[in-house]
Amino acid sequence: MDKPERKPEAPFRSFGDYRWDEVPLLAYKEEGAAPFKAITRQVLFQNPELACEMRYFEVAPGGYSTLERHQHSHGVMILRGAADVLVGSQIRAVKTFDLVHIPPMTWHQFRTTGEEPMGFVCMVNAARDKPQLPTADELEVLKSDPVIAAFLG
Amino acid sequence: MDKPERKPEAPFRSFGDYRWDEVPLLAYKEEGAAPFKAITRQVLFQNPELACEMRYFEVAPGGYSTLERHQHSHGVMILRGAADVLVGSQIRAVKTFDLVHIPPMTWHQFRTTGEEPMGFVCMVNAARDKPQLPTADELEVLKSDPVIAAFLG
Repeated sequence: MDKPERKPEAPFRSFGDYRWDEVPLLAYKEEGAAPFKAITRQVLFQNPELACEMRYFEVAPGGYSTLERHQHSHGVMILRGAADVLVGSQIRAVKTFDLVHIPPMTWHQFRTTGEEPMGFVCMVNAARDKPQLPTADELEVLKSDPVIAAFLG
Repeated sequence: MDKPERKPEAPFRSFGDYRWDEVPLLAYKEEGAAPFKAITRQVLFQNPELACEMRYFEVAPGGYSTLERHQHSHGVMILRGAADVLVGSQIRAVKTFDLVHIPPMTWHQFRTTGEEPMGFVCMVNAARDKPQLPTADELEVLKSDPVIAAFLG
């Protein structure tokens, strides 16, 4: 997939209040593209020399990421706050510096818990496929597990 | 380069005291391979689905990484503590969640400051070249800048 041109990162970019020098605060996804709530995105590393990108996503209290799957994989580290996370058929409570690995074609969703924003970095291949949303049938199958049904709300 | 076989990461691995479930504490490099002091390495994400790896390095107070350069690039985020970092001809003080980008063929070194260990995650291409150490002549050139000479000690 073509990526928009982006100038190389400066050697040093400082952190302050979950923002970084020169890093714009972006929408999580195009509005209406998929169901999600209260998330922002910041691209921390994205340049032609690196085969992966590192993004920072922040979910406000009560927010959640899109329930989706894709061929590409995610390597996630929580940076702040707490969430319940669905990966395949497992749901786990996570907190700062915990790791989450999303294998290929595995349904996943992050939902904040508690009163604080939940932020995480996500490492992902620069060349990757588009996420898939569950069909009504696939959602039915997922929700046949009462724990997952309760998680999805 | 061939990488040793490694089983896929579990979906969830918890953090505690700068260690992670199932993640072994490794030597930074082979002893005697290059100059460095007081560093450990933990590989947080390394699997065939991801084109990059994420490693966590921790440098004890007074420690430092190898002064080196290579064709591959690094995307670094500080997780704890503080350091002075050399990238090319720039030296900067960094602290938790600051970002450091090491471009190709750029001399770099991390040196802790303060009384705390300094830890950082480093994103790097899975396929990469071997680091180069400076020759005596290259070291001479680097040290012709008095600020860099003082940094290198």
